[in-house]
Amino acid sequence: MFGAYWTPKILGEVNDSFVKVFKAKGEFVWHSHENEDEFFLVIKGQLRIKLKDTEIILNSGEFFIVPKGLEHLPYAPDEAHVLLFEPKGVINTGGTPSDKTVENPEWI
Amino acid sequence: MFGAYWTPKILGEVNDSFVKVFKAKGEFVWHSHENEDEFFLVIKGQLRIKLKDTEIILNSGEFFIVPKGLEHLPYAPDEAHVLLFEPKGVINTGGTPSDKTVENPEWI
Repeated sequence: MFGAYWTPKILGEVNDSFVKVFKAKGEFVWHSHENEDEFFLVIKGQLRIKLKDTEIILNSGEFFIVPKGLEHLPYAPDEAHVLLFEPKGVINTGGTPSDKTVENPEWI
Repeated sequence: MFGAYWTPKILGEVNDSFVKVFKAKGEFVWHSHENEDEFFLVIKGQLRIKLKDTEIILNSGEFFIVPKGLEHLPYAPDEAHVLLFEPKGVINTGGTPSDKTVENPEWI
């Protein structure tokens, strides 16, 4: 559909935010975003978001907003497609750079 | 599902924006938002957005971003459910107040 797992692509800009999509499978990395809330809406499949003390399970059509500063670990048992809404400057891995970091997402 | 047609309800806040949903049927009103882009994602049914020189047809799972300043008329031949993403201060009828104006959307 749109390339590698955990690689957000930009669909459009809405004021100071981007609408992005990404394909998920397996585990991402624990991270947080110091100043930005992130909106996740599952388009296909199931996305799970581990928090320190609980776990959010999102099926297609369901959403969750990760508030700024909250440590979270997105993962997907099987392939899932997810829409993201977040401020333009957000880096996918937040304050935890790794080989999964995408500094400049592509537009599609 | 969530009350009257063309009455946006707030699902959550993401930084300076609200995520809203509304139920559409029939015509809304021609209007524009001077300073805000609006993101529309159709969840169920079909939403059409008339622009001055064309018409956007959005089926379930499809989205469109109405850029700031652009006159638009949303309408739905049959009932549709739509997710909206826009800055907190946006009034649904923009610069064209009417009996469809919702000044302070409810949270659900």
